[in-house]
Amino acid sequence: MTATIGTSTLLDRHGARRGDKAWLGTLMASADARFVVLVDGRVVVASNADRSETHIRWLTRRELLALPLPGPALAAPIFLGTEALDHGGRFAIALGRIGQLGGPAIASADPEAELARALPGPLVDLRSLAMQGAMPPAEVSLVAQALTLANWHATHGHCARCGQPTAPADGGWKRQCGGCGTDSFPRIDPVVIMLVTHGDRALLTREARFPDGMWSTLAGFVEPGEDIEHAVRREVAEEVGLQIGAVRYVASQPWPFPHALMIGCMAEAATAELTPDPAEITGARWVDRDEMRLLRDGRHAEGIRLPGRQSLANVLVETWLAECGR
Amino acid sequence: MTATIGTSTLLDRHGARRGDKAWLGTLMASADARFVVLVDGRVVVASNADRSETHIRWLTRRELLALPLPGPALAAPIFLGTEALDHGGRFAIALGRIGQLGGPAIASADPEAELARALPGPLVDLRSLAMQGAMPPAEVSLVAQALTLANWHATHGHCARCGQPTAPADGGWKRQCGGCGTDSFPRIDPVVIMLVTHGDRALLTREARFPDGMWSTLAGFVEPGEDIEHAVRREVAEEVGLQIGAVRYVASQPWPFPHALMIGCMAEAATAELTPDPAEITGARWVDRDEMRLLRDGRHAEGIRLPGRQSLANVLVETWLAECGR
Repeated sequence: MTATIGTSTLLDRHGARRGDKAWLGTLMASADARFVVLVDGRVVVASNADRSETHIRWLTRRELLALPLPGPALAAPIFLGTEALDHGGRFAIALGRIGQLGGPAIASADPEAELARALPGPLVDLRSLAMQGAMPPAEVSLVAQALTLANWHATHGHCARCGQPTAPADGGWKRQCGGCGTDSFPRIDPVVIMLVTHGDRALLTREARFPDGMWSTLAGFVEPGEDIEHAVRREVAEEVGLQIGAVRYVASQPWPFPHALMIGCMAEAATAELTPDPAEITGARWVDRDEMRLLRDGRHAEGIRLPGRQSLANVLVETWLAECGR
Repeated sequence: MTATIGTSTLLDRHGARRGDKAWLGTLMASADARFVVLVDGRVVVASNADRSETHIRWLTRRELLALPLPGPALAAPIFLGTEALDHGGRFAIALGRIGQLGGPAIASADPEAELARALPGPLVDLRSLAMQGAMPPAEVSLVAQALTLANWHATHGHCARCGQPTAPADGGWKRQCGGCGTDSFPRIDPVVIMLVTHGDRALLTREARFPDGMWSTLAGFVEPGEDIEHAVRREVAEEVGLQIGAVRYVASQPWPFPHALMIGCMAEAATAELTPDPAEITGARWVDRDEMRLLRDGRHAEGIRLPGRQSLANVLVETWLAECGR
C-alpha cells in the first residue's frame, strides 16, 4: 500500500552539514539558488491556463531581492535542501504580516498589497493546494516542510526552559537560546487519523470546524505514554463511543497545521452503536461502499463530500474501497 | 503482528474531564487514590524475593503525606487516570533534586538520602525496568506516561511564545502562560527505529553512547515535512549509506527519553555495502538468523548482546526471526 501523498525525495536535506553557515551562505549567493516565498501561510505558485497543474513558483535571488521587503524579512531563510540535478540550494522565505516586521519602514500605506503586486505569481494556501490536487505531491510536501518550520519559528521565539529570546540556527532547523544556551528543535505533533470500519461499512463524522458539506474520518493527537494503536482506540472511544479491535497502519503524512505528523490507520470496530461526544462531533454515520463511491466522486444526493484527494482521509477511504473490491 | 510492549489500557485518562479541578481534588482526597513517586527519573517499585517480578509500588495518600518532602513537591501531581475496578485516581508525584525544591527547608543535611530511607521501596530507572523485563508492560507504559509528562514539565517552565513563566493545569496535561495566556501541550517527538534487512541478513549497529557490548537497530528523529517512510530512508542513507526499498510499519512505543514516540519499521535494503557515518556509528555488521538467535539468547561468542526484551529494537528482531521461520 502506497499513499498518494509521498514525501519529496527530490532534495538532499544535508542534516549533517546545515550547521555550516559559510556553506549555506555560498549556496544562497549562487546563481542556482531558488527561493519559495510564503506570506501568512500562503505560497507563491505558478499555474497553467486552466489551473489543472500548479507548481511552486521558485524565485531567483535577483527576483527575491527586487521584492518590496524590509531587510529583516530575508535575514533567516529556511534551508530546504539541495536539488539533485544542479546541486542548487532551495530556501524558503517565510513572512508573517509584512507591516509588523522590524527594520526600515516600507514606503507604502499597504505593504501587503504592494508585495502581492510585486510577486511573480498568486498566493495560495496549502489546504487549497492539497484539496485541488493540482500540485505534484512532492512539491506539496516541500511546502509542508517549509510551513512546518515557519510555524514553529513564529511561535517559539523564546526558550521554554529559561524564557530568554532564541535565534534561528542551522538554516532554520534549530533555535538557540541567548540566555541558557539550550538548543531547541522543530516540534512535530504525532496525530492519529483512522477510518473506522464495521463489517461492510465505514464511519464518517463531522466536526463543527469542518467546511460546509464535508465529512471525514476521526483524528486526534497522540498523548504521552501511549502507542499509535492505543491512541486510535482511545480517540474513537472518546469521540463516538465505539470499541476498536484490530488497528492497522496504512500511511503517514506531514501536515503543517501547525506542525503535525498524521499517522493513518484502519480501525475495526467491535461494536456499531454510535454515541458521539457533543463537544466534538456534530454528525456520525455509517456509510457502505456504494455510498462511499458516490461521496468520493462528488455525486452524493445530499451534496456532501470527502476531504481532497491528497488528504490522508481520502487515502484511507481509497484503501478501504480497493480492499473491498469493486 | 502485536508488539510485546503494549500501552496500558488499565486506566481511563478522562481527556475531557481532567480540566475539572474540583473533581481531581476529590479523586486525590479519596481513600482509593494511589500515587507513584518518581525521583530524578527513577520510580519506587516493589519486587518479589528473586526480583523476577517487579511492580509499581503505589503509595496511599497517608504514605505520601508521611514522606519527608517540602510542600511544593506535592503541589502539582500528574493525573494518570482512574482505575477500572475501584474508580480510584492514579497520580504521579515527580521530584527532581529534592534539595533544589522551594518551600520550607527540610531539617536534613542530605534530603535525598532521607527520602530514599523513607520510601516504601527501592528506586529503579525506567531503562533498567525495560531491560530486565520483570515489570508487566502495562505498568512500564504507565511509568513512561508519568516520566514523559514529568520531563516535559521540567524543561518547559516558560512560554515559548512570550518567555513568561507557565504553570501546570489539567492534572499536568497542559501548561498555561501567565503572560500571553497561551496554552501549551506535552511535546512528543516521533522517532523512527528500523531493522534493515538484505536478503537473509539484518543490520546491527553500535553508537558510542551504547552500553558496552550492546548492538542495536538504527533510529532517528522524524523531521518536519517528511512521512515515516521518508524518515526511515533518510536516516539509513545518512547513517550507513544504504538505499532502502520497501518500508513496513511493525509497532510503536512511547519512550520517555525525554519524550519520544518510537515508530518501529522493517526496511528492505536495495544495496549491501556499508559506509557508516563516523560521527554517529562506531560499528555496523550484517547478521544472519543463526547469529541473531545467539545474540538474542545471550550466547554470542563475542559476548555482544541486543537491547532488552521490552525494547522496540528487540520486537523488530523477534518479528524478523519469526518471519524467517525457525
